[in-house]
Amino acid sequence: MPMERALVRLLRSQVLRAASSPSRLQRGVLGRGLPSQVREYAASTSSSVSHFSALDNRFGKDGLEGTHRHQEKVDPFSLVADELQVVANRLRSMVTAEVPVLALAAEYFFKMGVEGKRFRPMVLLLMSTALMTTPAHGLQDLIFDDLRLRQQRIAEITEMIHVASLLHDDVLDHADTRRGISSLNSMMGNKLAVLAGDFLLARASVALASLRNTEVVELLSKVLEHLVTGEIMQLSSEPKDMSNMDYYMQKTFYKTASLMANSCKAIAVLGGQPEEVALHAFDYGRHLGLAYQLVDDALDYTGTTKTLGKPALSDLGQGIVTAPVLFALKEFPEMSKLIQRKFKTATDRNQAVEMVKESRGIAQTHELAAEHAQKAVDAIDSLPPNPSLQVQQCRRALIDIAHQVITRSK
Amino acid sequence: MPMERALVRLLRSQVLRAASSPSRLQRGVLGRGLPSQVREYAASTSSSVSHFSALDNRFGKDGLEGTHRHQEKVDPFSLVADELQVVANRLRSMVTAEVPVLALAAEYFFKMGVEGKRFRPMVLLLMSTALMTTPAHGLQDLIFDDLRLRQQRIAEITEMIHVASLLHDDVLDHADTRRGISSLNSMMGNKLAVLAGDFLLARASVALASLRNTEVVELLSKVLEHLVTGEIMQLSSEPKDMSNMDYYMQKTFYKTASLMANSCKAIAVLGGQPEEVALHAFDYGRHLGLAYQLVDDALDYTGTTKTLGKPALSDLGQGIVTAPVLFALKEFPEMSKLIQRKFKTATDRNQAVEMVKESRGIAQTHELAAEHAQKAVDAIDSLPPNPSLQVQQCRRALIDIAHQVITRSK
Repeated sequence: MPMERALVRLLRSQVLRAASSPSRLQRGVLGRGLPSQVREYAASTSSSVSHFSALDNRFGKDGLEGTHRHQEKVDPFSLVADELQVVANRLRSMVTAEVPVLALAAEYFFKMGVEGKRFRPMVLLLMSTALMTTPAHGLQDLIFDDLRLRQQRIAEITEMIHVASLLHDDVLDHADTRRGISSLNSMMGNKLAVLAGDFLLARASVALASLRNTEVVELLSKVLEHLVTGEIMQLSSEPKDMSNMDYYMQKTFYKTASLMANSCKAIAVLGGQPEEVALHAFDYGRHLGLAYQLVDDALDYTGTTKTLGKPALSDLGQGIVTAPVLFALKEFPEMSKLIQRKFKTATDRNQAVEMVKESRGIAQTHELAAEHAQKAVDAIDSLPPNPSLQVQQCRRALIDIAHQVITRSK
Repeated sequence: MPMERALVRLLRSQVLRAASSPSRLQRGVLGRGLPSQVREYAASTSSSVSHFSALDNRFGKDGLEGTHRHQEKVDPFSLVADELQVVANRLRSMVTAEVPVLALAAEYFFKMGVEGKRFRPMVLLLMSTALMTTPAHGLQDLIFDDLRLRQQRIAEITEMIHVASLLHDDVLDHADTRRGISSLNSMMGNKLAVLAGDFLLARASVALASLRNTEVVELLSKVLEHLVTGEIMQLSSEPKDMSNMDYYMQKTFYKTASLMANSCKAIAVLGGQPEEVALHAFDYGRHLGLAYQLVDDALDYTGTTKTLGKPALSDLGQGIVTAPVLFALKEFPEMSKLIQRKFKTATDRNQAVEMVKESRGIAQTHELAAEHAQKAVDAIDSLPPNPSLQVQQCRRALIDIAHQVITRSK
């Protein structure tokens, strides 16, 4: 395995370098000694505020209800594009530059879900501004602000936890190696996938500890527990669990939405917001995460490998039951047998797809996603009024993201 | 794989139970609602203080220098035996009782190294008393003391991190599955080993966060990073690294001693000790950990499968270079080739063992271990004088442990 050997060498030499130069590590982790990107950012902010692209209202009759419906549209991404670049560069210098093998890992996963690219950091930076109480004089003020740096750190930690969980989820059993599932770790080996994930978790822990806020540490530690719980729930082969919608939604919260919910809440906690506001932030993240995953589940049945950038029907192929199947089960009780067999044969899988497509499964999944997106919008609308244009723009952007999540096709 | 399926079922049902009843979880993690063992402990303390067994001075001419040399000997373990039971029971209820599959995992590893059984918690509880500034009125006071509960929590967290690292270290590559290395994960599958490890790490993080001490969180987060770094260093196949004693000692610090060093320091930090005292605690843990590992390395060559409770020559079998080989290399330069080949063939291994045994490798490893044990003793002797009998007994016990570590034969 020459590739593995090479990766081990890289990983080792880079990690060693990081471990033996604490000052460099600390600069990376604590964000002291602002990287040149921050200085570049300062120079570019005047242009970045003016280049918001006006998005068409793509939502038509599906548009969600909210008090911000008729405000000017802005592209959520462009609102924080430059700051995201800062966060992404810092992440790279915290992780990737030190451990090139992790660059491969990150690359691999970011390619799989295009929406996933910087999605979590984007939401968290928008949330940071959406909850601002003292208006910044300009984005330059904002980005050098100590609180803002801490909130950016949450975005970085969240992304590290996310990638670590993907790496560990992807570790294969001996048994699974026979099933020919393509995964990162068939490229790099189980051992390296575990180590790379552990390394990210360790870095995330150190960065988290450096924030020196015990409530925030508690929120994100809880997420780690939820991620494991969700993964274990997904491994279940109990028929009563696999066919149960509540079980599925709980699993989805643990595996997908908890990270978003708790990191949104962490942004509020760092900002010194009252519990009620922190709860709205949590609710936004929770419902956005659930909506996102439900749409993902539907796309697994309606998308093609080309549009998705990953294999279609991959859930089914791995024996994983998702919302479309659970809705279809209500119309086709014979789905039950296929679920219990974990769609083992090609015939099973073909039958399952047919039932899903003949049922209202896909439509109902989208409806449920829309309900959660609406609840995410409601959470933003429940925030205390704030006259600042910046704050309003970012709240609007968070609402737009809820729309985009349910209307995306990839 | 019917066993794996059963384990998944157990793991899932138990983790779910834990996740769905936060109050129960919290009781476990935060130690509220003291378990019955604590109450039993209170009833038993009067006997436990009197049943210290008087150990013979086994060290003879090898005895280490120290100001406590001529005090009455006590068995270190018996000094904290009952409290260890409390810690062990709480650990079980935090982890094992919730997730039976982890019981198997823990069992497996504790059997491998007999000294490993509760070794870390024992040291940490003794350190807690050794650093006490306000003398307790009796052990009953002590065990219900809030500070003491927090220090016990460090012992629990340390043990969880330790077992998690063993689980993850043991994950096999595809390549390795062909080498037939016996490991926990060949019993339970890579996926479960990763999940069980992640679960322990997540529990440890939550418990750590609940201590609400940012410095302690930082100390133990750092350990996670060191564990990964050490593991990556061990995977190296660069000849210059594999043959280098400094590299080996650095790796050993990261993989073994950092956890002991930083958790000892955490005990001091929780106790509100000045930085200087915290550093002595760190040094004790560091040197004890290094001495322990060096002796382990020697025993791999001198012990038998029967006395060790694990296969002899297991390092060599896995291509891992340890101190006896590095010392032997100085006398037998031809060892170099074998190291680079990672002792691939039976002939390689036989030759390596012969060279180690013909060289002063084993003796020099023991000498180096004794040096580190002496430094551990020095660290205890450097603590501020304290007239309390309890404190003195525990300091003496820590010194005795340093002796035992270098004279053990299993």
